[in-house]
Amino acid sequence: MRAMSTSAPELSPEALAHVGLRPVLLSDDGRALRLLDQRELPARETWLTLTAVEEVAEAIERMAVRGAPAIGCAAAMGLAAAAHGFPEDPDAFRRACLAAIDRLAHTRPTAVNLFVALEQMRQALDGLAPGADVATARAALESTARRHARADIAACLAMGEHGAPLLPEGGTILTHCNTGALATAGWGTALGVIRRAHAMGRRIRVLVDETRPVLQGARLTAWELVHDGIPAEVIADNMAGALMARGLVQAAIVGADRIARNGDVANKIGTYTVAVLCRHHGVPFYVAAPWTTIDLELGSGAEIPIEERDESEIHVHGDRRMTPIGVGARNPAFDVTPAALITKIITERGVHEPSALAELA
Amino acid sequence: MRAMSTSAPELSPEALAHVGLRPVLLSDDGRALRLLDQRELPARETWLTLTAVEEVAEAIERMAVRGAPAIGCAAAMGLAAAAHGFPEDPDAFRRACLAAIDRLAHTRPTAVNLFVALEQMRQALDGLAPGADVATARAALESTARRHARADIAACLAMGEHGAPLLPEGGTILTHCNTGALATAGWGTALGVIRRAHAMGRRIRVLVDETRPVLQGARLTAWELVHDGIPAEVIADNMAGALMARGLVQAAIVGADRIARNGDVANKIGTYTVAVLCRHHGVPFYVAAPWTTIDLELGSGAEIPIEERDESEIHVHGDRRMTPIGVGARNPAFDVTPAALITKIITERGVHEPSALAELA
Repeated sequence: MRAMSTSAPELSPEALAHVGLRPVLLSDDGRALRLLDQRELPARETWLTLTAVEEVAEAIERMAVRGAPAIGCAAAMGLAAAAHGFPEDPDAFRRACLAAIDRLAHTRPTAVNLFVALEQMRQALDGLAPGADVATARAALESTARRHARADIAACLAMGEHGAPLLPEGGTILTHCNTGALATAGWGTALGVIRRAHAMGRRIRVLVDETRPVLQGARLTAWELVHDGIPAEVIADNMAGALMARGLVQAAIVGADRIARNGDVANKIGTYTVAVLCRHHGVPFYVAAPWTTIDLELGSGAEIPIEERDESEIHVHGDRRMTPIGVGARNPAFDVTPAALITKIITERGVHEPSALAELA
Repeated sequence: MRAMSTSAPELSPEALAHVGLRPVLLSDDGRALRLLDQRELPARETWLTLTAVEEVAEAIERMAVRGAPAIGCAAAMGLAAAAHGFPEDPDAFRRACLAAIDRLAHTRPTAVNLFVALEQMRQALDGLAPGADVATARAALESTARRHARADIAACLAMGEHGAPLLPEGGTILTHCNTGALATAGWGTALGVIRRAHAMGRRIRVLVDETRPVLQGARLTAWELVHDGIPAEVIADNMAGALMARGLVQAAIVGADRIARNGDVANKIGTYTVAVLCRHHGVPFYVAAPWTTIDLELGSGAEIPIEERDESEIHVHGDRRMTPIGVGARNPAFDVTPAALITKIITERGVHEPSALAELA
């Protein structure tokens, strides 16, 4: 059983009103999950309205929603919404909930937030009084899902406060993948730290790894940075090393999909290379993630399951197949950065030595 | 003045017949440059027929032909072909040749082979007897261009012989960009070494960095490897580090666009990151390039001019703009790998310590 608690404070409605974009929402009546379809960004802002478990599962698998915390929120809210279609008999309702949790847990393997969120939903069911009716169960699922999302935003805002002072005035900050509002219930983790540093008046520039093959950097992080008016340039993933060698990068900050007890971090493929480059050039390498990303069950990153996605993501660029027929491709979606390459891990609890996580837990 | 000699033996016509694909050709009558348009590969095999200097210059600038040795051959052959349209008056002919050399020298700045080839063409003009007629001059340009291409192929074949024993039996070899037949007059440099190792029966597999933004790896190297039946998988550039960390890469081999006297190597952007990753993981990192790639005028890689190409190469994937309007991009086309990160440099003369180049020269 994973630790479920989060130490982030509850967000006030006033604070929530200033968070800005929230890409994963539960409708006011609790009957629909609303998702900003991230596959279409930045060309089109399309919102999906999902009410069935299978729709939610496929939205996660096909990356209409991605980003470890956002996936967790989508699964919780999706289950709460879909539960309105489950049987009115309490036993059948519970069986449908557990089947839904099982289906959603098999969408993507690497990010732990999905499993944390689903475990919270299961505990909400388990916590019901004996003989509780289905309406009560639905209300418990809805309030748990909404609380999960608010806690995620609160954690992001706290990470921003803790992490922003680490980003040097006048510096250029490298980031990889998308860790902004789009990757969370709102505000962002690593990109939230960058946003907070900018909001507090620190003059920083951002280098955005485009992040092949899905281009979360080029499409999503760049879109958020343009929206916020933060100076940013997109680079191909293979350019960061050359720019570091010229002294053009003062810090790197990334998110995390799962953190092992020893401080090893699984994150988007390419993160490990950024960490090696930072070590080679003496550039600090920071990870920002909510405390729930830490999976205390795992002794090291070697135990984190790494998703391998379809080869087509490598073969096709835009709408065109670029590789010749007959060649294979590898497509690991994540990699593991050992704790020894990480300068600090930023959570809502503060700024930590990677090696000190187990002790803090 | 750069050193013009190459120590590669002349190729016999019999040897030339077995080289396979030659993507840069001078027509039999010497009046047209024939180029396999590399922008269209692997989807379409389109041959361009060029007869004017401006056409040749634009084909180089727009990367219809790319790869340091191939650019040199295209410039030499393109000048020889275009000279058929130059004035019949000897003085005017010479002025047109010098203007053409100047135009072609301003197409791309980084690879030295272009300047070596154009200098050979200038020396062919300078070596004419006083009062030589224009027909004689044209014949001298044509024979110089053809000799340049034959010498390039001979150097590639010799590099293959020297380098193939370095690639371990049963090993997986990482390569970056395209350094095969398509990057040369024929056969290839680093990919030529891989081709030679495969041809001599060594069981090797190839990991191909897709090589953003122009995808020379995904499009061109993969195409050549499929053609040769060499087992190969394409990866995004950001995956090599994670695969090395899993012990899945036994050697890396790349080409070079210019090598300084101290052994520093300019090559396609991303090469430097591969070298840093190899050092971090204890994987040997080889560079294969013809001797003429060594620019003895330059003390170190810091003096090598690095081309910055248009931002659009970063913004557009396939036919679609992927980044939001309003974000910038960086697009350095090359980077510099310091000699200290290079295990060996392979030329047609043998296998060298990077630090020993100046002494060998």
